[in-house]
Amino acid sequence: MSDDLLPSWRPGATRDALLRFLEESIELPAERRFACFDNDGTLWVERPTYIQLDFFVDVLRERVAAEPSLRDRAELAAVLAGDPAQIDAIGLERVVGALLELFVGMTPEEVTLRSRAFMSTAQHPLGRPARSAVYQPMLELIDELRRREFTVAIVSGGGVEFVRSVSQELYGVPPELVVGTQPAYEFGRDATGRPRLTRAPGLGGTPNEGPAKIAAIQSQLGRRPVLAAGNSAGDREMLEWACGGGEPCLAILVDHDDADREYRYASQAATFAETEGILDVAARSGWTTVSMARDWRRIFPDDR
Amino acid sequence: MSDDLLPSWRPGATRDALLRFLEESIELPAERRFACFDNDGTLWVERPTYIQLDFFVDVLRERVAAEPSLRDRAELAAVLAGDPAQIDAIGLERVVGALLELFVGMTPEEVTLRSRAFMSTAQHPLGRPARSAVYQPMLELIDELRRREFTVAIVSGGGVEFVRSVSQELYGVPPELVVGTQPAYEFGRDATGRPRLTRAPGLGGTPNEGPAKIAAIQSQLGRRPVLAAGNSAGDREMLEWACGGGEPCLAILVDHDDADREYRYASQAATFAETEGILDVAARSGWTTVSMARDWRRIFPDDR
Repeated sequence: MSDDLLPSWRPGATRDALLRFLEESIELPAERRFACFDNDGTLWVERPTYIQLDFFVDVLRERVAAEPSLRDRAELAAVLAGDPAQIDAIGLERVVGALLELFVGMTPEEVTLRSRAFMSTAQHPLGRPARSAVYQPMLELIDELRRREFTVAIVSGGGVEFVRSVSQELYGVPPELVVGTQPAYEFGRDATGRPRLTRAPGLGGTPNEGPAKIAAIQSQLGRRPVLAAGNSAGDREMLEWACGGGEPCLAILVDHDDADREYRYASQAATFAETEGILDVAARSGWTTVSMARDWRRIFPDDR
Repeated sequence: MSDDLLPSWRPGATRDALLRFLEESIELPAERRFACFDNDGTLWVERPTYIQLDFFVDVLRERVAAEPSLRDRAELAAVLAGDPAQIDAIGLERVVGALLELFVGMTPEEVTLRSRAFMSTAQHPLGRPARSAVYQPMLELIDELRRREFTVAIVSGGGVEFVRSVSQELYGVPPELVVGTQPAYEFGRDATGRPRLTRAPGLGGTPNEGPAKIAAIQSQLGRRPVLAAGNSAGDREMLEWACGGGEPCLAILVDHDDADREYRYASQAATFAETEGILDVAARSGWTTVSMARDWRRIFPDDR
């Protein structure tokens, strides 16, 4: 296989494992060429905060300007203060619940427009537009998979509509191939009798992490992947799922070990308890662990 | 627009409405080129029984041969007797619940293999293989939509895995573009610790009819269609949804009025109460009603 494949991946065992899988996958029937990627920390940056949380803060600031009494809610005050300790004390779930209330009554189209407006100008602390805080090596891998007629899906713990609002532009992934945490919707009719869907409080199901990712892959996408990529305990079952159905398969775990070019941290699931360090699971299971520091020549599309 | 488009549609107001929509849709941004088709009675035959019910009967007969005591269950006895009055007396929901129990413990792959085995040999009472009991005019419409870069989805009240098992072969629709009634799944691990999904009793949600179709389109597919096609009250909200979001749009209702070539009957939703005759809703709403007798030159791919 040619040397100019995956140019942002440095030569070594990790790149070799990807190239081997790409070669072997040619023998798979078309129906089985299916790959699932986590989003936060796998396709784009999740530090210092989830980009979706920045979006929530943006919506919150706009709403507080019109309705200052919103500042009196402890959950929202903690977010406005940007105080992780206060958020932890209140509990992420309660805080997210309060933030979700800001969207109650909005239609899906309104939510999409609002998140696109945010993403069109949002800057990431790493000094680039948020929409370019995506990992170039993963984009190259997705391209190679598509060249081999893979269907590529995103299976995220993030809000499904937020991810869908940018998935086509950032990754070439259409909305039906994005699985995420579902918001609650309410069916109704407008004054002229036409059907309406509007956001209701809370979620439409469980957060999309852990075993829920497998269930959602089955119910929404309808087939089992032969490749899965993730970075945290919230992706564990999905990676096990990809490599529990026969060969060839590939389970990719991204290790954030690059303090100079990105961040150095131990990945954690947002809502999901870890029973064993995910790097240990990867080593024990024969997954392909990606060291960002060692394996990635470039991290972002506009690097060098 | 050329005369040789949609050759199985006879010239007239219905075909003109389709051609007008196809022409106008060119102005839609790519993201909005999205069409949803019901399956039973819209893409393939639903009389004298749903083809999925024939599949259930096939599985039931196989299981009864191994385990004759299953005959003692009233719900299953009614199905084996093929007695609609008895099924009605017991209630379709209870009967379907008993049939779904036959699948408990099966993996998604096993369900798919079993339904493909059925579909590979099943014969339809109209004297053709079940997999060719599909409407040629609708296949031509789907082809024309795809030629205009539409994404085409199936939004069925039927079991999602049964429809997915044949959707690629029959309609060119991949599993992620099939929405249907979801079975319940249970997450577990096998003896070696690998994750398993197996069928649990009952459904994984509400039957996919009526307003549930809109909610499922949003949660699973993530965008609103500009074309929807159906045949019963279970499709009403979906058709209203397609034509409540701006022009151009097309809502297509198939009227089964051809006793000679197919069946003549008033379409009814399987689990969903009708508040107004669906043909009346169509006339009042300006939908395009398809008369199978008048508008379709051919009904099945192998006709004439």
